[in-house]
Amino acid sequence: MSSPKKEILVLGGGFAGVYTARCLEKILRPEEASIHIVNVENYWVNQPLLAEVISGSVGITDVVSPIRRLCRRTHLVMRSVESIDLRSKTVIVSPGFRPRRLELHYDYLVIALGGRTDFSRMPGMVEHALPFRTLGDALEVRNRLIHTLEEADVETDPDMRAKLLTFVVAGGGFSGVEVLAEINDFVRRVKRNYLRLRDEPVRAVLIHSGARILPEVDERLAFTAQKILVRRGVDLRLKDRLVAATSEKAILKSGAEIPTKTIVSAVPSAAPPVLQKLDCAKDKDRLQVNGNLELVGYEGQVWALGDCAAIKTQSGNAVPATAQHATREARVAAKNIAATIRGAKPSLFSFEGLGKMGSLGHYSAVADILGVRISGFFAWFVRRTIYLMKMPGFNRKVRIACDWAIALIFPPDLVQVRLLRGSAISRQHFEPGEIVFNQGDLGNCVYVIEKGECDVLLEKDGETVRLAALKGGDYFGEMAVLNDVSRSATIRTRAAMDVLVIPKSDFDMLKTAVPAFGNVFRELARTRTAAGTARTAREENSR
Amino acid sequence: MSSPKKEILVLGGGFAGVYTARCLEKILRPEEASIHIVNVENYWVNQPLLAEVISGSVGITDVVSPIRRLCRRTHLVMRSVESIDLRSKTVIVSPGFRPRRLELHYDYLVIALGGRTDFSRMPGMVEHALPFRTLGDALEVRNRLIHTLEEADVETDPDMRAKLLTFVVAGGGFSGVEVLAEINDFVRRVKRNYLRLRDEPVRAVLIHSGARILPEVDERLAFTAQKILVRRGVDLRLKDRLVAATSEKAILKSGAEIPTKTIVSAVPSAAPPVLQKLDCAKDKDRLQVNGNLELVGYEGQVWALGDCAAIKTQSGNAVPATAQHATREARVAAKNIAATIRGAKPSLFSFEGLGKMGSLGHYSAVADILGVRISGFFAWFVRRTIYLMKMPGFNRKVRIACDWAIALIFPPDLVQVRLLRGSAISRQHFEPGEIVFNQGDLGNCVYVIEKGECDVLLEKDGETVRLAALKGGDYFGEMAVLNDVSRSATIRTRAAMDVLVIPKSDFDMLKTAVPAFGNVFRELARTRTAAGTARTAREENSR
Repeated sequence: MSSPKKEILVLGGGFAGVYTARCLEKILRPEEASIHIVNVENYWVNQPLLAEVISGSVGITDVVSPIRRLCRRTHLVMRSVESIDLRSKTVIVSPGFRPRRLELHYDYLVIALGGRTDFSRMPGMVEHALPFRTLGDALEVRNRLIHTLEEADVETDPDMRAKLLTFVVAGGGFSGVEVLAEINDFVRRVKRNYLRLRDEPVRAVLIHSGARILPEVDERLAFTAQKILVRRGVDLRLKDRLVAATSEKAILKSGAEIPTKTIVSAVPSAAPPVLQKLDCAKDKDRLQVNGNLELVGYEGQVWALGDCAAIKTQSGNAVPATAQHATREARVAAKNIAATIRGAKPSLFSFEGLGKMGSLGHYSAVADILGVRISGFFAWFVRRTIYLMKMPGFNRKVRIACDWAIALIFPPDLVQVRLLRGSAISRQHFEPGEIVFNQGDLGNCVYVIEKGECDVLLEKDGETVRLAALKGGDYFGEMAVLNDVSRSATIRTRAAMDVLVIPKSDFDMLKTAVPAFGNVFRELARTRTAAGTARTAREENSR
Repeated sequence: MSSPKKEILVLGGGFAGVYTARCLEKILRPEEASIHIVNVENYWVNQPLLAEVISGSVGITDVVSPIRRLCRRTHLVMRSVESIDLRSKTVIVSPGFRPRRLELHYDYLVIALGGRTDFSRMPGMVEHALPFRTLGDALEVRNRLIHTLEEADVETDPDMRAKLLTFVVAGGGFSGVEVLAEINDFVRRVKRNYLRLRDEPVRAVLIHSGARILPEVDERLAFTAQKILVRRGVDLRLKDRLVAATSEKAILKSGAEIPTKTIVSAVPSAAPPVLQKLDCAKDKDRLQVNGNLELVGYEGQVWALGDCAAIKTQSGNAVPATAQHATREARVAAKNIAATIRGAKPSLFSFEGLGKMGSLGHYSAVADILGVRISGFFAWFVRRTIYLMKMPGFNRKVRIACDWAIALIFPPDLVQVRLLRGSAISRQHFEPGEIVFNQGDLGNCVYVIEKGECDVLLEKDGETVRLAALKGGDYFGEMAVLNDVSRSATIRTRAAMDVLVIPKSDFDMLKTAVPAFGNVFRELARTRTAAGTARTAREENSR
């Protein structure tokens, strides 16, 4: 085979993406293809164990695994996907330290970008509810719980204390139930260390739209789970749903209001924005694929799998968004890419699932394995054993086994791991002769000079022209941000300079909310554009 | 003894503060005194092991311990100290969920607030150098290292790649040397997992003002340490110091410039701002105490210890800022407080130190224990054993022992634990009838109404008067922020309302940098104040 080396690009580092890269590494020889994977974090998350980060029964970094270790021959690009062009076979990813976007070209593309929690249709949810998908989310929830306990401990108003000790989880599927069970266990166990909270009641509320929780399993198992949760003090709100949230309460469809400072949402997810923009065959929000997991319309070029694809098994069942399915889809996609490269026949996806398991916390679980229903401690033990076996890498297996052993003996940890960050508006310092940004860079912030001087330089036909000198009180960088284009000039400091940096997101909010603020910059951009046009005209004339 | 129960307040949760509370719990009966401790985090940090968080050889939460578990009878107030009034025996702490400050009264006060890294005298340091004191700092450094590696792996420009792979640490004391050694080890070990970086050189630079590193130990031991570090590829820059930093380079006093994206500072610290404001006897920045650790001028009421106090032993030696000294100071302070309560004789502080130990990474260390100098693997082993024995709580001992055992077998972890936070300017949603803030609350942000309506209510002589109704596009909350006073009115929503919340810190930066922005709010505050004065005058007339 003397065909040139192929470029395979995998988007997304979840179960589907990482397992595809791992399978490709096994099937293909290095000289046949080079593999790239794009993911916003440098680690893969073992989603089914994520809830355990809340109580710390699995160490923070043990529930995840570095993608570079899992896929040793794959190049990781730790950026987010900004756009996909299926026609020119190009993917554009976000900038890093340098304000430049990166363009990646592919011969074969695997789209496995998963889902996002979509709060847009419920007022107040974006602002006040916590999603639960990433490691960062899990840490946020943990920190929020500890923060509410710390505040409740010094709070003198009993209503406020009750509000602080109420925790609401929306969504009664496996994910929601597991998160709620962990929250309930964790808060009840650590509150003994809060001298004033020992005798205070804790309220953990699970809101679910169906008549029973756990739609994934059969009725009998779900009822067992409900009984176990109620015995642990969980407040079940069935046939109701969350419709709005504020910083003080959760508001339900039935009109009921629950005063709380902590709302976690584990409702099923929507497609990520980059796929919403993608122009191809879709089933509702999800990418439509054929039995070989090829994207309809782009067969032999693009495969889609995991939560972002609408997949049906050979027998016509819709495939649920679980880890066991994602890993099997990955294997089929990898095989089919290899088959395409080698000119062989592709295989069909036909996995029907082995069973379902969900933790209820406090050493109990429910499981349905190949049709056998188990619950309680035995189910909990089976679930842990299976997940431990399935964790890739011996290293992580040992770490998790240690974590679990320690968690059996000792009470949960109550350390709050905060990364203190000040405001997003920040200051920067430059020494003389440094470049603030280059012509052609991405315009992602506006600068205000607090002190110092700089030159505005234009490169044209290989020559550098000095357009202007700026000093304390002057602004720059507004043009690219206002018009969403790249930088039209280079900024180089003359003297040591201190600047205030306003990121585009803050700038955009402020210019809408405070028109006088926006006008300052719009006016400036207008003047500068006019000057630029006049200059160009002068140059044209002088030729 | 029928004297009333005394209130003991400990400020600071480091070695000095936490050990004082622990000793007090042992010496005093619950009916003699109640103990409060104020700390900004809910955990105590085992400072000497903090550097190991960088490589992950100690689990992120194992190097710290929850204060509530260490001091079970002590009330923890997880806030920061805003001001101390020694005359009225009152301490004011920052607000929590509710925008109200908390006032704490004491009979006996222990000041153990430690130090802060002071960057103010070097241009660019606040903006571009990373401090290294808290758990958050250690995680930031770890994340920065991983980020630079990820970026270097996709970077095509060789100069930029070299810059990303250069790491600078300022300060050649134990703390700086340990941080540098950890960075050097970690980067060299994990870069094997970066396909494009395997053969790239890594540069770790240690900058120290003295002629040799480790001023804490004698010359021979310091030279041994230097030899070990140089063998590991560390670039030592002696008799030089960091004078400025930008996002692209470190600038030294000698004029040398080191292109880098990572500068960590471990230079000795300054007093925290709240103590700088405190009006009492000081030795340079530090609080002056007598031989019983009582604050000069406030004997029998206030004790000061740890890094923030200028302590001399009986033989006249200045006490260094180490854990072994802080724990002994804590014991003396606790004993003396008990003696004061019980009318007994106080004791003098006379601990002269047992020795010094510093890790050089990669299984080697230097130590000077009771005058015996050791180095290499044996010193490393002794150091670990001592720190493990000294770690309070059996729980943490087991966890750390497990961590170390795992770290011996497996390569360091390279997971980047990011807490993704958007902008500090945020949105909030309110339902009808909710209170945004109450009259008398702390004014810590300005609001812009994006949608919805609210009432401005004034409570006066027990009556509630409606001053105005606000709607989309209106601003509120500017008055308290501009004048740094508490809220002059209550805001209650009429209809569901979405607001943009600008925190005071951002607001202050923007109003200075963009005068037109500040003017909008200043003008509004002026009009509203005038209206308020007119209203008061009318009311006075109508009486």
